[in-house]
Amino acid sequence: MIETQPAKRPSSPNYDIVIVGAGPVGLMLATCLARWGYTIKHIDNRSEPTPTGRADGIQPRSLDLLRNMGLKSAIMAHKPARVYEVAFWDPPKSGNGIVRTGTWASCPSFIDARYPFTTLLHQGLIERVFIADLAKSGNKVQRPWTITGFKTDEQANPEYPVEVQLKHTDGTFEETVHAKYLFSGEGARSFVRDELKIGIKHKDPISNVWGMKCTIHSENGSIMVIPRENNMVRLYIQIASSTDPNFHPRKTATEAEVQATAKKILQPYFIEWERVEWYSVYPIGQGISERYTLDQRVFLGGDACHTHSPKAGQGMNTAFLDALNLAWKIHAVEAGFADRELLKTYEPERKEVAENLLNFDNKYAKLFSTRPSADTVQAASEQKPALQSGGGAEDDNDFIRTFKESCEFTSGYGVAYSPNSLNWSPDHAARSPLIHPQGTNLRTGRLMINADVTRVVDANVVHLEQEIPLNGAFRLYVFGGHPVRNRKALADLAAHLARPDSFFGSHLRADMDQVSHHDCLNPHSRFFSVCTILAARRSDIEISRDVPGLLARYRDLVYADDIWSRRVPDARAAAHAKLGLDEDKGAGTVEALNEYFAAFTANKKLGASETRPQL
Amino acid sequence: MIETQPAKRPSSPNYDIVIVGAGPVGLMLATCLARWGYTIKHIDNRSEPTPTGRADGIQPRSLDLLRNMGLKSAIMAHKPARVYEVAFWDPPKSGNGIVRTGTWASCPSFIDARYPFTTLLHQGLIERVFIADLAKSGNKVQRPWTITGFKTDEQANPEYPVEVQLKHTDGTFEETVHAKYLFSGEGARSFVRDELKIGIKHKDPISNVWGMKCTIHSENGSIMVIPRENNMVRLYIQIASSTDPNFHPRKTATEAEVQATAKKILQPYFIEWERVEWYSVYPIGQGISERYTLDQRVFLGGDACHTHSPKAGQGMNTAFLDALNLAWKIHAVEAGFADRELLKTYEPERKEVAENLLNFDNKYAKLFSTRPSADTVQAASEQKPALQSGGGAEDDNDFIRTFKESCEFTSGYGVAYSPNSLNWSPDHAARSPLIHPQGTNLRTGRLMINADVTRVVDANVVHLEQEIPLNGAFRLYVFGGHPVRNRKALADLAAHLARPDSFFGSHLRADMDQVSHHDCLNPHSRFFSVCTILAARRSDIEISRDVPGLLARYRDLVYADDIWSRRVPDARAAAHAKLGLDEDKGAGTVEALNEYFAAFTANKKLGASETRPQL
Repeated sequence: MIETQPAKRPSSPNYDIVIVGAGPVGLMLATCLARWGYTIKHIDNRSEPTPTGRADGIQPRSLDLLRNMGLKSAIMAHKPARVYEVAFWDPPKSGNGIVRTGTWASCPSFIDARYPFTTLLHQGLIERVFIADLAKSGNKVQRPWTITGFKTDEQANPEYPVEVQLKHTDGTFEETVHAKYLFSGEGARSFVRDELKIGIKHKDPISNVWGMKCTIHSENGSIMVIPRENNMVRLYIQIASSTDPNFHPRKTATEAEVQATAKKILQPYFIEWERVEWYSVYPIGQGISERYTLDQRVFLGGDACHTHSPKAGQGMNTAFLDALNLAWKIHAVEAGFADRELLKTYEPERKEVAENLLNFDNKYAKLFSTRPSADTVQAASEQKPALQSGGGAEDDNDFIRTFKESCEFTSGYGVAYSPNSLNWSPDHAARSPLIHPQGTNLRTGRLMINADVTRVVDANVVHLEQEIPLNGAFRLYVFGGHPVRNRKALADLAAHLARPDSFFGSHLRADMDQVSHHDCLNPHSRFFSVCTILAARRSDIEISRDVPGLLARYRDLVYADDIWSRRVPDARAAAHAKLGLDEDKGAGTVEALNEYFAAFTANKKLGASETRPQL
Repeated sequence: MIETQPAKRPSSPNYDIVIVGAGPVGLMLATCLARWGYTIKHIDNRSEPTPTGRADGIQPRSLDLLRNMGLKSAIMAHKPARVYEVAFWDPPKSGNGIVRTGTWASCPSFIDARYPFTTLLHQGLIERVFIADLAKSGNKVQRPWTITGFKTDEQANPEYPVEVQLKHTDGTFEETVHAKYLFSGEGARSFVRDELKIGIKHKDPISNVWGMKCTIHSENGSIMVIPRENNMVRLYIQIASSTDPNFHPRKTATEAEVQATAKKILQPYFIEWERVEWYSVYPIGQGISERYTLDQRVFLGGDACHTHSPKAGQGMNTAFLDALNLAWKIHAVEAGFADRELLKTYEPERKEVAENLLNFDNKYAKLFSTRPSADTVQAASEQKPALQSGGGAEDDNDFIRTFKESCEFTSGYGVAYSPNSLNWSPDHAARSPLIHPQGTNLRTGRLMINADVTRVVDANVVHLEQEIPLNGAFRLYVFGGHPVRNRKALADLAAHLARPDSFFGSHLRADMDQVSHHDCLNPHSRFFSVCTILAARRSDIEISRDVPGLLARYRDLVYADDIWSRRVPDARAAAHAKLGLDEDKGAGTVEALNEYFAAFTANKKLGASETRPQL
């Protein structure tokens, strides 16, 4: 569908989406939508992917996501550096030079992370992993092309309302296309944002404290040292101070000048360069876009929405999650599952995250300046994860609470969306108390809690949260409790799911009868993949006896909750216990789920009819 | 150095080794020796790697080895099946058909394995991983070529005493080369073995019980079902019974006949074929070569030495370890470290393993026929690893003891070499009681025990046993105990290592002064990589203060023993505890190591001089 050098055509071609920019946000969006079958016109004004430099930190939660997309092993094949700890160096109380004043875990054990480290790899290598994946479905970024204009007209063209003008950067070719959506992943200088006259709210940069790796503050300035693949290190070297009242960041400095500054800061230690891979000088600007979309047709994401200190290591990670958030919503709407209103949740969810990101530097600066002894930090790091809703234990002091919040935030596990139609709260249209039962450790608007379980069909020990690949479907986890004591409840659940008026039964595949028996992810509906987790040993579970037919159809997604966890050492069924669900009774009813999904599906009458089960 | 179609030449070229056969054993040997800088002439009589079928099981210990060589991720990229359990199906006590009568873990938790499963992948894909790795150093298998003759003459050509005639299988080209060694990895029909007139001792095949995956015995015969990559399964279908007094295995049967047999065996269940990837009929022959080498110049390995039921899933794994065993010994001799006598240890070490492999079927058959209840098996599987020398707890009954031995054997963790100059025993020339101190859980002639530790320089949590890649060097693990209480002992150890008459100081690199500071594996000697493990928290270790200079030069190999292990939950330093080494005092002296290495190094006077430290 995509040509790199299209000639002028008589009639304008149609695409599901035009994506401008092939950095992390544009590539993630394209990869998701391409996999789910959408047609994409993807352009970038650079003639090749990022050759060197730029963002290089993948946070623990982003690595989970990349693994879920099957891209983690390609990333790890580059042997990135893994950062488990931050070391701080400061001037000593007496004397000159610098001394190490503490080390903090990047992702302390109170966060229940699969990969409790930051993965550091040159952005160009990460981009190429996405580009290779896109190539598998025949998608290619058209380079070097740029956007020159666009307009939305729902009345003139209800199906493809966005008209976009594109041209080759050398002006030799031009193209006009129509699309359902236009996405700007253009970075800080966004043509689309400027055209829409969306303003940027600027914030003061805080450049003297950052949250990761090895930070060195001396009387001569600050340096952050970041390990990288192939024994390289990246140095962020402060060449002007923002605390100076006449702060005016320099935009030019020679390599030698910067190196001389680094040498001074690091005294009494010395540093030499074997070679310089990349070098750049830039002022740190912080700002946030006032809107992410005006009409739910043209969207912004990534650096086009939020620019900040690169040193927080959050840019690429926030970009990934902007794209993921938008991708599944576009899919839910275009595939006919959700109401178009759903797209209105993109901006508030993601903008709040960006606001938190910009506030983070400030918070962390304060946190660091009041930091207590190394032992207190160590003790805080080694706390068990806060399993209760709402976070930390009550006896935590201010420091520990802020420390934990910061760690959760930088790891990516702290992203929390506020209540809306998706993120349940007592104000949600769905009123059933079963939606968020008392005692659960799950927090609405947050990631599911990680858990190890045993897959029943082949006895493989697996990461439950990774078992369903990112396939654009909702994931239903049926925590069934004890299979014998709970047999009737499970059968009822399956029977209610099967009803044609349930949220599930009303979204079946038209080609359900032709689905291969190998497809255990979406045999009934493209919108749902269903896992069943039973609180029993694998050897005691017999799928044909213990799992109702509808759930058993997902035979690769039936699990025994029989793997011991150090986080809940006394639990009989650790996954149930970690999530705070009853090990005997399990949790969930179809009625509650009907109410929940009715809040944003196109079909508002879920569960209202009297028809019989159809599956 | 290698040409695929060399023309006849006037003078014969020299190679370090000629390898005949590019199956698992030949490829493993070539990969090791190529990495360590040896020149190789490698031929195979097939025109391409195994296209389909053949051995497909990688045992846990082999996966450790592949990871250590950096090849595991390429294997896992093919998404092999992982087999965690074996299921058994038999005729019911009353009635017809088959019922599941039990499931056993493939690698129960009493074995302290990193990867407690069998990895199943078509052999051709595994071969291609090695071939791709060899290509990186410019090595290529010359195909389709075969060996037509060879002779060894140490007197005529002391440096390259083995003359080998090779020819293209179509007879168009011939070549004569000279080499230090000739290796036959030709498989069961070995030209080299036949030429040497080495006999095969045949054994009766036992075909009714095998050790893995899903075994089905019905009144109509037996089937073993083995999961494979891409949702495939491999079926071993018995079409004639060895228990029949007139047993004469059929060498031909049509695909349809074999499928009909399978359908009968599986009653009352049914089976259909979507497609057949590969199909073959063969009798199971078991035999073992009487010798592996006659002159320590021409060696055999892999199937050329031992053929057996493919169903034990051990063929490729035994082949890998044959090759590894020979590779490091050739390297130690050719690089000048070890006495040529060392090569005489290859045959007895590897032949004993093959004998055990052939005895295994018998043992396992008996074990299975006397198997007790599922609960007893489960309880046995879940026992903690036997940490005491000599294996199982004293109150284990015969069944449990044999069950454990079998599991250890099939996992590869049970390989045990008998005492010789390498594998210490009280009869060894080295008499120091410190060589194998009382209380240690390490067993001579066995693998090191796995352990997690924290790398001090970057706080990465790592698998200690994987930290030194397979680089042809001996691995010295200095378990230093508590760094403060043990400071003097560590300093003494370093000082004695540094002496020019120590096993270490007498094998320094000639280019030691030019070694890059990035090389933390072999900065002093190509024969040794040195790890230091301290029983302290990472944050309490300061390398410049706690680790003597010689050991600190291996700065990437300094570890904190501060990771909790469920296997020794009360230990302060889990790695020390798992190995049974004192958490305070650590273990090891240079004098004991001098004695040990003197038993097989070229230099027999280690530690005898009065010279001063040189490092």
